[in-house]
Amino acid sequence: MVKIGIIGSTGYAGAEIARLLVSHKDVEIRWLVSRSFAGQSYAGIYRNLFEIIDKECSDISIDKMAEDVDVIFTATPQGYLQGQLTRDILDKCKIIDMSADYRIKDVKVYEKWYGMEHHSPELLPDAVYALTEINRDKIRETRLLANPGCFTTCSILTAYPLMKERMIEKDSLVINALSGVSGAGRGAKVANLFCEVNESAKAYGVTTHRHTPEIEEQLGYAYGEDVTLQFTPHLIPMHRGILATETARLKGSYSYDEIKAVYDKYYDKEKFIRTLPKDVCPETRFVEGSNYVDVNFRIDERTGNIILMGALDNLEKGAASQAVQNFNVMFGFNEDEGIDMLPMVP
Amino acid sequence: MVKIGIIGSTGYAGAEIARLLVSHKDVEIRWLVSRSFAGQSYAGIYRNLFEIIDKECSDISIDKMAEDVDVIFTATPQGYLQGQLTRDILDKCKIIDMSADYRIKDVKVYEKWYGMEHHSPELLPDAVYALTEINRDKIRETRLLANPGCFTTCSILTAYPLMKERMIEKDSLVINALSGVSGAGRGAKVANLFCEVNESAKAYGVTTHRHTPEIEEQLGYAYGEDVTLQFTPHLIPMHRGILATETARLKGSYSYDEIKAVYDKYYDKEKFIRTLPKDVCPETRFVEGSNYVDVNFRIDERTGNIILMGALDNLEKGAASQAVQNFNVMFGFNEDEGIDMLPMVP
Amino acid sequence: MVKIGIIGSTGYAGAEIARLLVSHKDVEIRWLVSRSFAGQSYAGIYRNLFEIIDKECSDISIDKMAEDVDVIFTATPQGYLQGQLTRDILDKCKIIDMSADYRIKDVKVYEKWYGMEHHSPELLPDAVYALTEINRDKIRETRLLANPGCFTTCSILTAYPLMKERMIEKDSLVINALSGVSGAGRGAKVANLFCEVNESAKAYGVTTHRHTPEIEEQLGYAYGEDVTLQFTPHLIPMHRGILATETARLKGSYSYDEIKAVYDKYYDKEKFIRTLPKDVCPETRFVEGSNYVDVNFRIDERTGNIILMGALDNLEKGAASQAVQNFNVMFGFNEDEGIDMLPMVP
Amino acid sequence: MVKIGIIGSTGYAGAEIARLLVSHKDVEIRWLVSRSFAGQSYAGIYRNLFEIIDKECSDISIDKMAEDVDVIFTATPQGYLQGQLTRDILDKCKIIDMSADYRIKDVKVYEKWYGMEHHSPELLPDAVYALTEINRDKIRETRLLANPGCFTTCSILTAYPLMKERMIEKDSLVINALSGVSGAGRGAKVANLFCEVNESAKAYGVTTHRHTPEIEEQLGYAYGEDVTLQFTPHLIPMHRGILATETARLKGSYSYDEIKAVYDKYYDKEKFIRTLPKDVCPETRFVEGSNYVDVNFRIDERTGNIILMGALDNLEKGAASQAVQNFNVMFGFNEDEGIDMLPMVP
Repeated sequence: MVKIGIIGSTGYAGAEIARLLVSHKDVEIRWLVSRSFAGQSYAGIYRNLFEIIDKECSDISIDKMAEDVDVIFTATPQGYLQGQLTRDILDKCKIIDMSADYRIKDVKVYEKWYGMEHHSPELLPDAVYALTEINRDKIRETRLLANPGCFTTCSILTAYPLMKERMIEKDSLVINALSGVSGAGRGAKVANLFCEVNESAKAYGVTTHRHTPEIEEQLGYAYGEDVTLQFTPHLIPMHRGILATETARLKGSYSYDEIKAVYDKYYDKEKFIRTLPKDVCPETRFVEGSNYVDVNFRIDERTGNIILMGALDNLEKGAASQAVQNFNVMFGFNEDEGIDMLPMVP
Repeated sequence: MVKIGIIGSTGYAGAEIARLLVSHKDVEIRWLVSRSFAGQSYAGIYRNLFEIIDKECSDISIDKMAEDVDVIFTATPQGYLQGQLTRDILDKCKIIDMSADYRIKDVKVYEKWYGMEHHSPELLPDAVYALTEINRDKIRETRLLANPGCFTTCSILTAYPLMKERMIEKDSLVINALSGVSGAGRGAKVANLFCEVNESAKAYGVTTHRHTPEIEEQLGYAYGEDVTLQFTPHLIPMHRGILATETARLKGSYSYDEIKAVYDKYYDKEKFIRTLPKDVCPETRFVEGSNYVDVNFRIDERTGNIILMGALDNLEKGAASQAVQNFNVMFGFNEDEGIDMLPMVP
Repeated sequence: MVKIGIIGSTGYAGAEIARLLVSHKDVEIRWLVSRSFAGQSYAGIYRNLFEIIDKECSDISIDKMAEDVDVIFTATPQGYLQGQLTRDILDKCKIIDMSADYRIKDVKVYEKWYGMEHHSPELLPDAVYALTEINRDKIRETRLLANPGCFTTCSILTAYPLMKERMIEKDSLVINALSGVSGAGRGAKVANLFCEVNESAKAYGVTTHRHTPEIEEQLGYAYGEDVTLQFTPHLIPMHRGILATETARLKGSYSYDEIKAVYDKYYDKEKFIRTLPKDVCPETRFVEGSNYVDVNFRIDERTGNIILMGALDNLEKGAASQAVQNFNVMFGFNEDEGIDMLPMVP
Repeated sequence: MVKIGIIGSTGYAGAEIARLLVSHKDVEIRWLVSRSFAGQSYAGIYRNLFEIIDKECSDISIDKMAEDVDVIFTATPQGYLQGQLTRDILDKCKIIDMSADYRIKDVKVYEKWYGMEHHSPELLPDAVYALTEINRDKIRETRLLANPGCFTTCSILTAYPLMKERMIEKDSLVINALSGVSGAGRGAKVANLFCEVNESAKAYGVTTHRHTPEIEEQLGYAYGEDVTLQFTPHLIPMHRGILATETARLKGSYSYDEIKAVYDKYYDKEKFIRTLPKDVCPETRFVEGSNYVDVNFRIDERTGNIILMGALDNLEKGAASQAVQNFNVMFGFNEDEGIDMLPMVP
């Protein structure tokens, strides 16, 4: 049994990791860390897990936990882990981090977009950007995983094949993405009250959203050159789900079959990425509660653009289930162990 | 492998049975029957199952299917099965029926509340009312299961211990229940459009809802005498979930511990029925997507009443997952095989 | 022009009063009090009122405000007003209070259910329980209005005619009520986050909800004797709306027409109370955004019960628009001035 | 009193016109036409209008109605009006058409995008594209108004000032728009059931949506040259609201103040178009239930793009209230008569 701990276990992402791992046949959950709820019954907060998880939240330090577990999942605010993590901790246990602290290789870019100093840049070379389907081999060989963001997983996987094959103008991408409210976390903020977000839609973080450099960096690696793009996220009234709609300029006059072949080249063997049939648009409900990503595209001969679309569940492939997928790769288990839930409709 | 077929496979309950059974390690799905969608790809309708179920809908007759499968699940409109089923079919295969056709033992009661003639009353003695936790032994020994309704499963399990122990006045029950919209089915009706049911609540079927005699019959068996009660269902804007709030007059002055002991007597060993801690009210979100039922109660010394509360997912314990639970009992598998999904929050 | 001020103007009820009164032809809004947002632009918080209300929130004391306005609306937490209000203030201006501070005549009942001392019991005799249609004449003649709660307005108006005519057993009422989330206010609480209340339903305040004694007192006045009843509120995922379903034992065998005649006796001339056609159940969407209350009933000859149903918008007839209706009565304006909005569907 | 009739009065847009006009002080509603509901009480369908509209639906022909009324509102499917309207009818009464039949000047463009023949192209020159704020003068002088679509009103008004002033590259516009479900109408379609659209998001009509040529034509008039753009609509789970997010390439390096001055030039005196304060993103909830459009923008110096944003209520400014606004202009009433409802939050 692999012994694990979760720091930030009472946020939505942390709780989803707990819910998935409690059913994982090779895992023992040792620690559920939550500063706010230390000493309280975990199932008193997440009553869906009543009689299933019988543990209290604790406030153990990451140093101490590292001596007791094989891997720590950190579902913590930006800046927490990079301020705590040391080579010493990393020697003792592996880390799967849900925050952005080790996602961006260039410290200056991180510090600019996140507005904070990075306190452990020396560990950045160890970190692997853990988009499973793209970096599977590297994930096997490191001790520090930077689990991608929800918008980014969706945005990158939707465009990856065409960027990798250089079939679209590299700086032409306009990404509009929609997010369910769980992406905003479980903090007690007026802005996330039911009566503030239900029956409404808005763009936010326009021109400044922190997932922008993450998407640009990864698509840049795919393309082989620096990429600049426009990313505009929106909040819409649903629990879970990311829908990315990406408009790009095609570099040539490609047929449906030619584009489809490129998607198949990269994704045909991937269980969790499904290229939908021709003209079928991804819908978030068809991936909800699962690790699947649905992608598709439509060529507009009239404008010369291609519209790329992707859908995933922000708490699953956009956070927790991808973290478990990476955990499985890291520890040599079947990649779908504990995350083969089928999307639930309705 | 047990070979199965589903008639009415494109409704919400039928589709949930398909989704559950495709992952069941001892099941082979042979037929997905849908008259409306015959010849169409099943995953073209339920795209959550794209690349997972690779079958077409068919319009095979129940007679023919009976020769090819071990058990048929019928998620069909009231009246369908009792008009089709024969002893001959039942000799060839087992039946798990989601409709009300064989739930009520008294044909006259059925015909009065459902407004239709019963065409196979001779099979009624074979039928077992398949509330798993109550009738587990009988379920093992029959070939015809009448799977309970969603309101009824919730209403009965919530009151069962106190009725069984005769601690409440038998005719004092006032049951108010709330249902998510999936209970209304997938038919194309104006009344179930998003813009008609969202942001609204209403009672319906007041004094006439067909689940009334089903609840009365089963609670009557528990009590040992005929029971009359008031059942008022409501429609509220959510996908899944039944919440039953039941007000009853206590027969004596019982303490919390005395009532709790009775719930524990019946439910303590039941995996899927959870009696919540003192003063915690069941919420449908904490059972959503699972086979769990959460129950609890609160004594009102001021009025002499007790308020009983129960919550379940109408498509799971209220339909599909209870059907699979019964299937497991019927065929000797582990009772939770294929239905041990944990409730998903949020 | 009547000069008014609102204390608690940034909560949902206070903001709705502001939205209604800014369009009222005889009103000048002088003060929008909010301790939390003092100094901030009101339209920066309620951007629906951008370019419509051009005022800042202030933190003026009630004493000072009383010298500048004709009437103060207090949409404040329980206990605030009874701790502040004096005879002196009341001599200077009228008060329309949205809290429960002056709703209950018996100080001991107030102190028991609200768990706090009442600091101005000497003003209780002045207070009129401002259910417009019931107490219209008294409302004209006082300076202190206790505007009823949302659950209570709905629960009382639904049962009033039958209690007044003593046609139902006085202690048999079982009231189950459903509330939209705006009733929980605009405070930053985890429990009211979108992801905590959406797609779920729960009972709360079971046996202890503070609206219980308020309903009992008013229905007791109607009946002419003390009344005890069971009130169980529920939270469901919608913005606005109260739906009350009330089960009562009929004292005799009444026909539909007899009951209907009693409803007509009290409500036929009331613009804002609509007794629906036979067998039509009230739905909250059909009163949303308006001052209307829809009521109806259904007799169950099988059980001897009658089911009463009522629906209103908790922020309108359950709070703000009823406050304006009372304001109109108090100041001699047309009763529907500023509140003749028609319910908005969908 | 202006006598009016509504064809298609039981759809959501037609019903909203009825709800608005029944309160309009200069209007008498004479006919509520609905083929499906002819002979039925209108308030039996829209029970929000119970005791408010006391009329039956009728199935009178447009010819006959033209002899009895001053203006006909047609909230009918595409193709209906162009197949019925004649010069003779238009001589007898004015027409305000909610469909696309007379919106597009070039018959070939209409026939290509709508896939049907146009049967009255000779009336197209009479038709005025009734975007009130842009074409107010022409609206006064014609008898045939083509009321704009919901996506188009929002998309055009959001970009109009910058296109008119030629400050953005004319073919660079990428418009992503989100729509509430009421835009899909009240037809009984599985795709619009609560359980199919709630908790999900999808793009639809990708590269083919019929509002595309309408937006291009009008923005082309503004720019002074033909415009080609990418329009991608999305369906999200809310009743009402359009949110348009438009990415465009700026022609030069403009400051916030320069762009703001252009918006003010066109919209500062417009009551119903509000340019929000710097950095505030429009949200659909802040215009819901009203005739307001909220617009704003954000310059991205990093990419050289500008992001334009607009929000309106698709049933109001996107359909019914703009139709009434145009009606007021056409008949010389105050432009805001009957449509000065303030947006309702929450």
